Parts: sequence; C-alpha cells; structure tokens
Amino acid sequence: MSTIKLHHPASQLVLADVKRASRHISSYAHRTPVLTCQSLDQMAGHQLFFKCENLQRAGAFKFRGAINALSHLSAMELARGVVTHSSGNHAGALALAAKIFKTRAYVVMPSSASDTKRNAVLEYGGEVITSLPNAAAREATARQVQSDTGAVMIPPFDHPDIIAGQGTVALEMLQQVPHLEYIIAPVGGGGMVAGICIAAKAISPRIRVLAAEPAGADDAFQSFKANRFIPQTNPMTIADGLLTSLGEITWPIIQKNVQAIVTVTDEEIIHWMRVFWERTKLLIEPSSAVAVAAVFSSNFPRTESPKNVGIVLSGGNVNLNSLPWN
Amino acid sequence: MSTIKLHHPASQLVLADVKRASRHISSYAHRTPVLTCQSLDQMAGHQLFFKCENLQRAGAFKFRGAINALSHLSAMELARGVVTHSSGNHAGALALAAKIFKTRAYVVMPSSASDTKRNAVLEYGGEVITSLPNAAAREATARQVQSDTGAVMIPPFDHPDIIAGQGTVALEMLQQVPHLEYIIAPVGGGGMVAGICIAAKAISPRIRVLAAEPAGADDAFQSFKANRFIPQTNPMTIADGLLTSLGEITWPIIQKNVQAIVTVTDEEIIHWMRVFWERTKLLIEPSSAVAVAAVFSSNFPRTESPKNVGIVLSGGNVNLNSLPWN
Repeated sequence: MSTIKLHHPASQLVLADVKRASRHISSYAHRTPVLTCQSLDQMAGHQLFFKCENLQRAGAFKFRGAINALSHLSAMELARGVVTHSSGNHAGALALAAKIFKTRAYVVMPSSASDTKRNAVLEYGGEVITSLPNAAAREATARQVQSDTGAVMIPPFDHPDIIAGQGTVALEMLQQVPHLEYIIAPVGGGGMVAGICIAAKAISPRIRVLAAEPAGADDAFQSFKANRFIPQTNPMTIADGLLTSLGEITWPIIQKNVQAIVTVTDEEIIHWMRVFWERTKLLIEPSSAVAVAAVFSSNFPRTESPKNVGIVLSGGNVNLNSLPWN
Repeated sequence: MSTIKLHHPASQLVLADVKRASRHISSYAHRTPVLTCQSLDQMAGHQLFFKCENLQRAGAFKFRGAINALSHLSAMELARGVVTHSSGNHAGALALAAKIFKTRAYVVMPSSASDTKRNAVLEYGGEVITSLPNAAAREATARQVQSDTGAVMIPPFDHPDIIAGQGTVALEMLQQVPHLEYIIAPVGGGGMVAGICIAAKAISPRIRVLAAEPAGADDAFQSFKANRFIPQTNPMTIADGLLTSLGEITWPIIQKNVQAIVTVTDEEIIHWMRVFWERTKLLIEPSSAVAVAAVFSSNFPRTESPKNVGIVLSGGNVNLNSLPWN
C-alpha cells in the first residue's frame, strides 16, 4: 500500500517551499487576477482586494495544491494513478491534475454528492467511486481502492505539498498588492489558510492572517478559543466546502499564525453571496462568501482606520439549479 | 422645450468622435478587462476574447454613452436635469451619470419594469416616473416631464454622443487585442453596434463586425435581408435589452458596415448563458448571452480557419430571483 511521501515535514514548511510550489505550478495554474469593487469598499469601510480563485482552473484554489502534489510524484508512482476522497473541489482539481499528468484519478465521493461535483470529475476523465455518505465509509473505500490499484493517496488538505501549493495564493497576492495589511480566507481543513500563513508571514511579518468560518462548522473557532484541537462534529452549514475538521498538520500552523477566526451565520453567507454576485458580477460559491461575509460581520476585528484587506474568493463552483435565495 | 443638440451630425460620425468620447469618459468609466476561457475556445473552434462590459459601472456598456452625452451639456443645461425613457440599462446608467455630474435624472419606466431595474435608478438618486407599458405612453410621459422641468432628453441609442460613447468599447478592444478578426455584439437599438462599426472599421479596415440578435426580435436581421429599415413589432424574447427597433441614425451605419446579423433562439440564449456562467464564473444577462450563443450557432459565418473573435458582454444586470433555467 502506498503512503504519502512527506517531502517536507510539516514543522519545517517555509516560504521556500511555497516558492518552489509556485515554480512547479506556474505552467499549469492560472495566475488569477485581484479585483476591486468601489461599492463594496464603501459598505465595508476598508479597501478590499479580491483574489479570484473562482477563476482558477477547475473553478477553485484546490487545483494549486493538487497539481503541486502530482509534480512531486515519480514516473512509477504516476503510472499507478492517484486516489482521494472528496465531495468537493479537491475532487475536480485532482481529476484535472491527473489528466494533465496523463494518469488516472480515482475519486471516492459520497452518494450525497451533487451531480455538478460528480460531473466535474467525470468531465476531466476521473473515475468516481461512490461510498456511503459518512467519513468512515469514505476512508475505507479510498483505502480499498488504494490497495486494489496501488494508486497514491492525495489527501485534500493535510499534506505538505498541498499546503505549499495553496500557499501560492498568498505569494501572488502580495506580489499583486504589496501593501495588504490583512488577508482573510475561508477555513475548512485549513490547507489554504496554513499555506497563506507560511507565505504571508514570511514575506510581510506584520500582516494579519484571519480565517473565516461558518458558525455551523466552527471547529477552528472552538479550537482557537480552547487553545487545543477540537474536531468538528455534525456540521450544519450551506458552505459545503468547509465541513471538515482541521488537520494534524494544518492546526498547529493556524494556531501559531492566525490572528482571529471570524465566524458568520448561514444567513450572512447567503446575504453577502447574493450582494457580491450583484455588485461584482462574479460567481462565488457559499464557501467563498464566508470570507466576504466575515469582512462585514461584527465579529471582524475593529480597526482604528480603514485597512487594505485581501480576501480569497476560494471557488466558484455553484449548483445553478438551486440557489440559496430562491 | 429642449431638443437634442446634434454636436456631430450622424452621417459625419468618425473615429475622431469616438476618440474624443474616450477622453471624455476616461475619468468616469472603467476600462473593462478582456478575458478568455480555454474550454469555450475549444467548444467554439475559435479564439474568443470577451470584453467585460458586465463589469462596467452600473453593470453595462450603457454608462459609456450616458456619461459621454452628459459631458457635452453646458452648465445651464445640466442645471435643468436630464430625462429619458428606458426600462433597461440606459436608465441606471443615466441615473449614475447624472449623479456624477450633480444633476437630476428623470427616468420614465413602464409599469412592467422589474424591481431590479427600478432600484438601480433609485439607488443612484434618479427619479422614476411610471408610465403605461407601451412605447407611445412612455414617449408621451417623457415629453411631459421634459416640458414640465426643462430637462434635456438623452435617448438610449439614437444620438451621436451615445453612439460615439458606445464606440469606445471597440477602441479599447482593439488596443487590448490588436489582432481581432471579428467583433460580435448584441443589437437592439444599435447604438453600440453602430459605434463599434465606426471605431473598428477605421482602425482595422479588414475587421468584420457582426451583430447578434434574438430570433424573437429580429428587426435588424429583417431589415438587413430586405435592405431597408423594417421596424420591430411584437418582440418576444428573454433578451430584454434587445426589444427595440433600430434607429434612424444607427440603421444606415449598420447597413453599411455590418457583415452579417446572426440570430439565435431563446433556447440557445438560455443554454449558452448558463454554460457561460458555469465556465467563466462571470454573470452575464440574457442580452449578452445572445452574442455568446451566436458564436456557437450554425448561423455564425463559416470560416476556413479558427479566428480571433471579440465578443462584447454587454451587461450583467440579472434578476437573481428568477433565473431562466429554474
């Protein structure tokens, strides 16, 4: 059975790893634009800079980590294929990355996954294996696929190559807008937020990294408050990309580097998702709207003066058949 | 009663007018980006360059013409305010332009206009006057407002300053993508298409300008075929920005310069609007989707080799409460 190759032990993840990831992914991933919106700035009382990972390939930042992880595999490993369990954007991202590297992606998805997410995997030539919709069943199915095929497991977030890949979001943001004072990104498993911490704090030590989280899946907030890892149980939120617990690698990085976890209700998520669509004409999915809503929330840290706030729009894969306000 | 001041008699509209408009509007209007999408290129068999007027202020290209028209008014004229009749994007654009020039906008809207369009006018501080939902009633109400207030009439398309303003779309496109071989834009009253003809043909004489039109409001197609102006009667289409007839000024310009009118059905409009949202994560309204659908239509001119096609995304003001595929 293949196991994850830990190229960079987590405790040693540094800016150089993110820069190396940036070189690895530069031929494959989009350098997404940073957009601004005057009317949202006025509402927020800050200057907002939106990093458009909804315009990333496969529609989400996840492609950065997936393509970086695959670029570390040997030809022999690639020949066996890759496997993951995900009902979300990591699934589509891995399928696309596998297609680019001319290998197979086996994606274990719960039977509850939407057709949109399933079709994204199929369209990129990935193979979908359906499991019962609970974490234990998904993991068992993935291990079975792994042992049947010899495929290499590429987990969705708790892996150094994934974290370094997602960290390139912050590397680019600070090249595009060097005077950022805050960066806020949604937190689920914490791969992106951890990567942002590593890159941003090294480039700009005084920058504040904030994580935005749905109140209905607030394990990061609870862990932060208790100062110890508390796993997520029974998440209930529309932000379907942010249901998981933090990971063993991501939690300590977040605990050490994040300024605050800002929680928002589903009502706020839906409200700001819609306002954002109307004002910017950009599609963002609910998980992205969590970070937007956080900036307008009373939980956002008070500041004496307007700040330059970078907001990561994590993805734009929306099921257009059922919009939350209809 | 105020009348339109014809600064540039239509027959004499030339590139210099569009360049002058470009200077007038440059402090107010966005220079919108041109975006590309690999998967749509593959589907179309052409290289597509999307000019994002959905990201223009007030959400549509109409702001260019409105702000250009107002920049030609004297202080005395501005003091009396401006008036128009429109149920669409010209209404919001004029209200925003009037706010910027610190004057009043009186907008006559049919009682059938959506709340979204009405609120856009109100939000910019414009005054909405409701009329019965037919052309004669709208025009009579507008004339009444004009005579009551002395406001200057700013029509939605059939005016040289409006046409020159909209023509700046093509001026920018050909700066951003000099090697364009085709430009296609939706045609309603024809203000934008006429402006594009004047600018694009002067800059790049071999370029082909195409107009995209809903089959349910195909007066331009019929006029083109008959080689004489045929007004629109009983339009039936989801593309609510393209219901009107061509104008006295716009028709001869279009007749002389446009290569072909490409018509598409409402089914095609809705299909490609959705595909476009899903692929690009950009919101476009049905009238914009007409130009996108046209490129994929069997009515699009056959070419021997793939072409560089500029497509104007005219606007992004969608009523999110009722999407056409739900």
